[in-house]
Amino acid sequence: MNCELVSVGTELLTGDTLNTNVMFLSKELSINGFSVLYHTTVGDNPGRLKSVIMRALTRSDLIITTGGLGPTQDDLTKETIAEIFGMEMEQRPEIVAKLKAFFDRRGVEMTENNLRQSYVPKGGVMLPNPRGTAPGIMIKKDDKTIIMLPGPPHEMMGMYEDCVEPVLHQLKNQLVISRYYNLSDIGESTVEDSIMDIIDRQDNPTVATYAKLGEVMIRLTANGDDSETINALLDRYEKVIIERFGSHIFTHSQDSLDVTVGKLLMEKGLTVALAESCTGGLVASKLAEIPGISASLKMGLVTYSNEAKMQLLNVRAETLDRYGAVSEQTAREMCEHLKEISGCDITASVTGIAGPDGGTPEKPVGLVYVGVCAKGKTTIKKYLFEGSRKIVQLRTANKVFHLIREAILDKTE
Amino acid sequence: MNCELVSVGTELLTGDTLNTNVMFLSKELSINGFSVLYHTTVGDNPGRLKSVIMRALTRSDLIITTGGLGPTQDDLTKETIAEIFGMEMEQRPEIVAKLKAFFDRRGVEMTENNLRQSYVPKGGVMLPNPRGTAPGIMIKKDDKTIIMLPGPPHEMMGMYEDCVEPVLHQLKNQLVISRYYNLSDIGESTVEDSIMDIIDRQDNPTVATYAKLGEVMIRLTANGDDSETINALLDRYEKVIIERFGSHIFTHSQDSLDVTVGKLLMEKGLTVALAESCTGGLVASKLAEIPGISASLKMGLVTYSNEAKMQLLNVRAETLDRYGAVSEQTAREMCEHLKEISGCDITASVTGIAGPDGGTPEKPVGLVYVGVCAKGKTTIKKYLFEGSRKIVQLRTANKVFHLIREAILDKTE
Repeated sequence: MNCELVSVGTELLTGDTLNTNVMFLSKELSINGFSVLYHTTVGDNPGRLKSVIMRALTRSDLIITTGGLGPTQDDLTKETIAEIFGMEMEQRPEIVAKLKAFFDRRGVEMTENNLRQSYVPKGGVMLPNPRGTAPGIMIKKDDKTIIMLPGPPHEMMGMYEDCVEPVLHQLKNQLVISRYYNLSDIGESTVEDSIMDIIDRQDNPTVATYAKLGEVMIRLTANGDDSETINALLDRYEKVIIERFGSHIFTHSQDSLDVTVGKLLMEKGLTVALAESCTGGLVASKLAEIPGISASLKMGLVTYSNEAKMQLLNVRAETLDRYGAVSEQTAREMCEHLKEISGCDITASVTGIAGPDGGTPEKPVGLVYVGVCAKGKTTIKKYLFEGSRKIVQLRTANKVFHLIREAILDKTE
Repeated sequence: MNCELVSVGTELLTGDTLNTNVMFLSKELSINGFSVLYHTTVGDNPGRLKSVIMRALTRSDLIITTGGLGPTQDDLTKETIAEIFGMEMEQRPEIVAKLKAFFDRRGVEMTENNLRQSYVPKGGVMLPNPRGTAPGIMIKKDDKTIIMLPGPPHEMMGMYEDCVEPVLHQLKNQLVISRYYNLSDIGESTVEDSIMDIIDRQDNPTVATYAKLGEVMIRLTANGDDSETINALLDRYEKVIIERFGSHIFTHSQDSLDVTVGKLLMEKGLTVALAESCTGGLVASKLAEIPGISASLKMGLVTYSNEAKMQLLNVRAETLDRYGAVSEQTAREMCEHLKEISGCDITASVTGIAGPDGGTPEKPVGLVYVGVCAKGKTTIKKYLFEGSRKIVQLRTANKVFHLIREAILDKTE
């Protein structure tokens, strides 16, 4: 079933509001087996809104609108759609009562314009909104379904769960299951190249790749009448993906690499400590976002200056003098000494030149050394990253997590 | 001039990617005096993409597309648009050379599909992309301008600044100047309420407020024929804003609070060290994003465990036993001892319960103590934040920067 999402609101067109609603609804619709073919955003303008809805009706079976249901003059989604379908607006006493109760509870006098929210196109189904004042509306006409939801995300999401998901389950006829494989240390074009045969003949399941900084996600989606058939189909393709990408696959989920590594540390009961120079605490703070990580993350040292490297990590002045702060030797001392200081199972170190200044011909911006110390073995890797300061820092953090994972799984050469 | 943004990519329609590009471009276009009337998102499907672009050409003068310029089979934005305009594709040797150099630098072999990026519609202008492999393209035909940008936000934003903004300045006929005032420690509704009189009668200049976590930005935008007239107009309104918000205004720019504080530290030649527990290095890593910060940021200690607090910061076991790790006393010892250890001009400490677990009735999730030690004075503040683990961490970091700024400007009570 083809779907279109129509977002209504000038605040989206001026860039004042980030449209998170379409991402939420798109994901929910996709999971439930609906094909979202278009997102359209239009301002609070009746003429343009009308033309957008009429266009949507020519190409989509299910249209979900968000926004334009509130009490103010520029909220006109339901009036515009009622006009398209030739439906009159009628006031619903139960909504009036609800509005009055809402304002009473807050001890605020209800302004007259709020009553606009009590009108519903005749023949439309009112969808209650327990988190706000503007109810939603569903209209079914011929083969088309239009669902109108309010714009504030927490109201919209609540109503989706309460009212829209049950409607979707009635509308759909097939079951859809997706599986995810997240890969690191490999580029998207290489991934695609390696599964071009599957992508080319794709029909059911479909295969898609998504690139994030340092990660590539493969999504495998199949549909069918029952989960057994679908899973058998997915198993066949999963086998191929595992064969071709092996240990590049760091998780069979949508978890990012940092979260995967954090969970792995906790699962194995391993402790970790970090010594960061050019990433300035980024690696530690990424781990710190994971609930429960305090069981594994014991300490982090941000040793930006040479003095801090010597004072906190006992990096030798001689090493800094002879090889420089950005060197294999310094990275090695940083993680090996941190092992002694922290007593943690795994320690990692970062030293590099994030830029934009500070580079030399021998040590250009983007040069980074990452060290990992685990199971009595130290691994130092040298990288040369391109991009802005922030990108260099993010790519470095990604490699730290990659190397920690390899150390946990004992895959370092 | 009417604009439309067309986002190309199935990952947007499946809800796998949040479309931040349209918000960025919408804001930039609005600031520059362009009216964005529609956003349309379509998948990697040539037929539907073609119909969307053709529709856009009937109603918009400037169309900016994002996505679909990469090396893979499903990247087909430029081919589809070339077809609409009856333009042939031609390979540009300078792009081939750039691609080869890009892969050589990385020591990676270039897969054949990357060469697709070297083709440009004949007559189109190539827009260089220093941050990635896919160049952008601009086509002008009759009164219409189409600009195609890559989908990855950091590439797109960089190209916007380098190539698109200058084009916009040529296209528009009036001069537009914006000024920004960024405020902290005040809520958006309070800000709006305080300038409602200006917002209500707004015409030229226009006033808008934008809320970010812990920050509110006021934008004042005026247009006119020459910069002198515009600036005189803006001066009048700026005076009112400064009168009403005083020291809540931490910068007359779009810089966020962390960047403002980082610049202030560098400007004043002050050194800083951080001791973080529940933020896990977030404060340090925010500072570390700022170019040149190594002159000020000397060290950071992520003392997640009690042992680390004792070992690295000499927090007394008695203090931890008696008052707990999340207490005013611990926050105080953390930043005062860090002052001794680091010798920095300013030290700050954070200890709290970011959640979702670990809360008690006496010390609930969201309880955070922030300490700042500067000019021989220690200030400890207690906060109770609501929201997810990540939100609590971000709000805490915001308050650390707020308190460091107050300490630098000697505003602590």
